[in-house]
Amino acid sequence: MENENHEARNKQVILKNYVIKRFPKESDMEVKTNKIELKLPESCSNNDILVKNLYISCDPYIRNLINDDNNMPAAHRTLVGSPLTGYAVAKVLDSKHTNYKKGDLVWGITRWEEYSLLSSSNSLFKIHHVDVPLSYYTGILGMPGMTAYAGFYEVGSPKKGDRVFISAASGAVGQLVGQFAKLAGCYVVGTASTNQKVHLLKNELGFDQAFNYKEEKDLDLALKRYFPEGIDIYFENVGGKLLDVVLLNMRLHGRIIACGMISQYNLEQSDGVHNLSVIVSKRIRMQGFVVSDFYHLYPKYLEMILPFIKAGKISYVEDIAQGLEAAPGALIGLFTGRNVGKQVIAVARE
Amino acid sequence: MENENHEARNKQVILKNYVIKRFPKESDMEVKTNKIELKLPESCSNNDILVKNLYISCDPYIRNLINDDNNMPAAHRTLVGSPLTGYAVAKVLDSKHTNYKKGDLVWGITRWEEYSLLSSSNSLFKIHHVDVPLSYYTGILGMPGMTAYAGFYEVGSPKKGDRVFISAASGAVGQLVGQFAKLAGCYVVGTASTNQKVHLLKNELGFDQAFNYKEEKDLDLALKRYFPEGIDIYFENVGGKLLDVVLLNMRLHGRIIACGMISQYNLEQSDGVHNLSVIVSKRIRMQGFVVSDFYHLYPKYLEMILPFIKAGKISYVEDIAQGLEAAPGALIGLFTGRNVGKQVIAVARE
Repeated sequence: MENENHEARNKQVILKNYVIKRFPKESDMEVKTNKIELKLPESCSNNDILVKNLYISCDPYIRNLINDDNNMPAAHRTLVGSPLTGYAVAKVLDSKHTNYKKGDLVWGITRWEEYSLLSSSNSLFKIHHVDVPLSYYTGILGMPGMTAYAGFYEVGSPKKGDRVFISAASGAVGQLVGQFAKLAGCYVVGTASTNQKVHLLKNELGFDQAFNYKEEKDLDLALKRYFPEGIDIYFENVGGKLLDVVLLNMRLHGRIIACGMISQYNLEQSDGVHNLSVIVSKRIRMQGFVVSDFYHLYPKYLEMILPFIKAGKISYVEDIAQGLEAAPGALIGLFTGRNVGKQVIAVARE
Repeated sequence: MENENHEARNKQVILKNYVIKRFPKESDMEVKTNKIELKLPESCSNNDILVKNLYISCDPYIRNLINDDNNMPAAHRTLVGSPLTGYAVAKVLDSKHTNYKKGDLVWGITRWEEYSLLSSSNSLFKIHHVDVPLSYYTGILGMPGMTAYAGFYEVGSPKKGDRVFISAASGAVGQLVGQFAKLAGCYVVGTASTNQKVHLLKNELGFDQAFNYKEEKDLDLALKRYFPEGIDIYFENVGGKLLDVVLLNMRLHGRIIACGMISQYNLEQSDGVHNLSVIVSKRIRMQGFVVSDFYHLYPKYLEMILPFIKAGKISYVEDIAQGLEAAPGALIGLFTGRNVGKQVIAVARE
């Protein structure tokens, strides 16, 4: 792969066009092979790092980076003709940054390609614990894990006995929120899009109850069946019509942790939510959050989660696709519910 | 008015029928005269109090008590054939309750009638300061004042320099929120339904800016004109379409204090709100509250507000209708924006 002048093939997943108010298609992306020098030039900037991507993380938020009409800072957006950006587990091949040296394993924001030349290292975390699957740093030990942790504990203010409802419950974040809620002594119900996922929630992930929302004619009745006394905490991953029905089933002083609204990302016109006035009468707090505001808690999270993983008290379900060629399909699959558990793309062995 | 056997006329505003998913009309109520004994019978319960209502408070939340399909506890609802319930300033005529004696002035929940026999006194506050207009205890010194105080300070977490937007800004609550926000060093813009109210906001109540939403073709442009850098705090009194546009103009970490959604109370189908997904990306906290959860802070509020009133640092605009006959029209007027300032009904002199 590497020749004498360090030049290597660099396969990339390139954005062909912006995706505006519609479902993304595989043909919105293309896998192309470019070349890259596998050594930083002498002239490069002090903080440059060259990494080899091992596992790439496939996350719903990426959808918001391939619009052209979003409010994201330009640095976080994907431009047409460039590789997609996203979280990955990577190995440092060369570094001008004093904090990283050749051979270090890191996780953070890189690009959908075999090798990435990163000009800033703000978002890279060093990996110190390797007695767990490395792919976990795209999930339970990475951004989705921190999302579940910050959302549930910091935003949700859970109490023992709280009745917790989770949408997209078998996803990268939802499956953890449910397990955290069980550990906190809550009653936990999740919803997902297939019976296979429902089985997983009930039999592998310890949810008290789970249901397939696609098989419920009346979501309001379904919620009343599982929450006859109402919902204390709703961990919101989908938005739209489900949120509207959940509002009707919230308890006094309930909390809606707004983590994402995946059902709305691809619509020309987002669904109207009609039942917001219960926010007043039921004293509901609906709060959005973005995980990067909570990364200072990562060491604390690791201290909690690593022993749970090692003791088998927390499970994590991954759906690992092989190779960058599978990446466009894996991204599309997030929006059709094809993935079962955290969607990862394995790019290379260490 | 009182005869030897203490029997008196008791004029009442009676609910004739429930008002469901439509605007209320004056003919949904009728003013009737009944009789009442102006002395508690020996046989009555220990906590009974007989009061003479002096000022009755006309508040939007009353709309939610004349539905028959609401979630309110039965004790707080108005039944067909009964007088409306609501806040009032009253004078104690007779009392079996040890905390209240004949001659005491009180404010709290009574009924829309000349005299009320109250079987529980949970919601009555004794009035100790009478060097201010007594009617103020239906407004700035009563429930709406506490609503503004608890909503702005306790729910809103204001900081100096915050950009604050207030809907229904000249109303009983809004006019106070704006003045509190100015005292806290915020930039304050209000919206109201007439040019007269806009003039009041800018020239009497100290708002930095105000506009008539009925004269704006594009509310999004109006908000961008007054908040080129976005809104930190939105004090929400109206809901619906305005909320949808405000969401687009919120700043990162903005707070939406959900006090009421008056625009939605009379609709067959409430407006759909489409822009909720910005709650995630902008880390917005939208929080509903009900003033009764904060009444323990009333003494602290009085300590703050009384000196401000006496020093002329806070103004309060009232719209006082005369007599119970005017009450049905005054209630309807809240929903058409007829009132200018806090709507009060003067029932009797002390």
